Amino acid sequence: MVFADNRFDTRRRQLATELAARRLDAMLLTDLTNIRYLSGFSGSNAALLVGSDRSARIATDGRYTTQIAAEVPDIAALIDRRTTLALLEGIDESRRVGVESAHLSVAAFEKLQGSVPEDITLVPVSGLVEPLRLVKDGGELAELESVAQLATAAFTELLEQGGVAAGRTERDVAADLEYLMRRAGSEHTSFDTIVASGPNSAKPHHGASDRVIETGDLVTIDFGAHVRGYNSDMTRTLVVGEVGEFEREIYELVLQAQLAGVEAATVGTELVDVDAACRDIIAAGGYGEYFSHSTGHGIGLDVHEGPYAAQSGTGTLAENMTLTIEPGIYVPGRGGVRIEDTLIIGAGGPKIITNAGKDLLVV
Amino acid sequence: MVFADNRFDTRRRQLATELAARRLDAMLLTDLTNIRYLSGFSGSNAALLVGSDRSARIATDGRYTTQIAAEVPDIAALIDRRTTLALLEGIDESRRVGVESAHLSVAAFEKLQGSVPEDITLVPVSGLVEPLRLVKDGGELAELESVAQLATAAFTELLEQGGVAAGRTERDVAADLEYLMRRAGSEHTSFDTIVASGPNSAKPHHGASDRVIETGDLVTIDFGAHVRGYNSDMTRTLVVGEVGEFEREIYELVLQAQLAGVEAATVGTELVDVDAACRDIIAAGGYGEYFSHSTGHGIGLDVHEGPYAAQSGTGTLAENMTLTIEPGIYVPGRGGVRIEDTLIIGAGGPKIITNAGKDLLVV
Repeated sequence: MVFADNRFDTRRRQLATELAARRLDAMLLTDLTNIRYLSGFSGSNAALLVGSDRSARIATDGRYTTQIAAEVPDIAALIDRRTTLALLEGIDESRRVGVESAHLSVAAFEKLQGSVPEDITLVPVSGLVEPLRLVKDGGELAELESVAQLATAAFTELLEQGGVAAGRTERDVAADLEYLMRRAGSEHTSFDTIVASGPNSAKPHHGASDRVIETGDLVTIDFGAHVRGYNSDMTRTLVVGEVGEFEREIYELVLQAQLAGVEAATVGTELVDVDAACRDIIAAGGYGEYFSHSTGHGIGLDVHEGPYAAQSGTGTLAENMTLTIEPGIYVPGRGGVRIEDTLIIGAGGPKIITNAGKDLLVV
Repeated sequence: MVFADNRFDTRRRQLATELAARRLDAMLLTDLTNIRYLSGFSGSNAALLVGSDRSARIATDGRYTTQIAAEVPDIAALIDRRTTLALLEGIDESRRVGVESAHLSVAAFEKLQGSVPEDITLVPVSGLVEPLRLVKDGGELAELESVAQLATAAFTELLEQGGVAAGRTERDVAADLEYLMRRAGSEHTSFDTIVASGPNSAKPHHGASDRVIETGDLVTIDFGAHVRGYNSDMTRTLVVGEVGEFEREIYELVLQAQLAGVEAATVGTELVDVDAACRDIIAAGGYGEYFSHSTGHGIGLDVHEGPYAAQSGTGTLAENMTLTIEPGIYVPGRGGVRIEDTLIIGAGGPKIITNAGKDLLVV
């Protein structure tokens, strides 16, 4: 097995250390995101076996013969549609092999149990790879900044071309924004775009409907791009035409909360304190009951991943983690505001990578 | 529990019959697609408990309080983020409860096992709901025809506006097609759009790259829309500028195979025979080794679902199943062709719902 001096090898070495600590001889990876993180393979079918001795083998089916050779030049690849079983059959000694209990179905596990050689013991384990992914390396940070920049530029272009206006539907706006991201290189959206106007802005998980945007509406736009596995996530809320008193009040309150959350997101800060930094301001403004979700999440190969900034969260921010700060106020029947940035937690403080203005914008 | 006379209730009654036959008192559904099929709920977090006595309860978290009331008016809904456990705790007798072994992780199953009341026995089972989904009801067929029509019209519009042309990138073409579908009401693509030009057309699972389309290229476009849970799937291959002899040869061969596959897709036909109808023609033409995938799949709430028409498939087509017919020839380094329609298997024969011309189109 050849080990190039690369980021994937570095990550597998970290995993190998974890395996040894748990007296596992190897780990069978089945989650495609974890496999991409540990090998670089981006196809839709694969399994990866990493040994505590730092060895590694990967398996996929015949559709990906060319792709796996190009993407994963440093690991021996099996072309065998029985991916997991093929890897396990290649083990020639009595072994304890971990399986990803959070990413393997009961049926798949039972099938493997019934098929593996007798001297292989499968051990369901969880949370081995995800903690490694919390802190991003330089290559990941560059990808995350790049995809955030692409999405932010598309949003700016949408506004410049008058894309958000009375008379257009929410879906029109979403379609235009997605098109601008796609043309700029996004492979697909990182999640279904939200364009929530007027009363819909009071629904945090609204999609983008046929509703026609009207003068006086709040319009919340929550969107992301996806490039080479990495995701972006950002939200802005605009007002169309003229600003009512209620709309201005909740906008300013969410903005103050968001700025406080960003300021709190420093190395060593407890995640519950980041959440509290946002939540306390909204509560003090009298809208506490209308901030009905948590403050933020990490982003990387998954659009939602650790760390999580919530009221019941645990843990502390470390250098080169990512975190969204996205407080909101949602008053049923009246309207809502959410403002969200993605941050990299730098040694010198938080760095916003979704650089679009946050002063109340009237279009 | 109130049972309205609706399609969801009808489906749950079918499931209840299956449960009784397996001596299960209830089934805990965790697959979101199966939950949508059985209840109409389209949110991203839910569990559904269906009893052999035809009772039903559903659970989701606080984000979906309004949505679940609107989408699932006929089932009692629990708002509890511990969805699965909350449903199981509501059972007040000793019970055997099936869980979806193909859609529940080992970790989630172990956690449930450790938390449920002692008189509940969890029984991993699979394949209870998916067989019900094979044959579509009238509402589903209407949705599938509608989304296929939307996608087909967008493709036609793309061609009319000169969207596929030398000098454009594959990504430009994909972006335009996706935009046309989005504006027409597609919520997102049913899978990542494929625009495979020139040598890329020889890769069945190519995406849409920065490659600039050139005169003489084959361009394979495989795409789908998604509306109200239902998906479309269609492929056409064009030639840009002028047609070479090789390109015409493989196009005509794939077209003959595709037409034969469509003709074979009738009620009562074995799925292996549908596959053979396509494959035999390509093999007879000397390109058998270059048809490297199976012939087709069903489509519904999942873009790929049963039935499957493949060399090793089992089963028979029944009325109101769906099936794609998508033979292809892929010659590495030279190019490839795939032509795909989606069919509804009608009593009077197959009905193509992706109605765009299949004569070799030169743009």
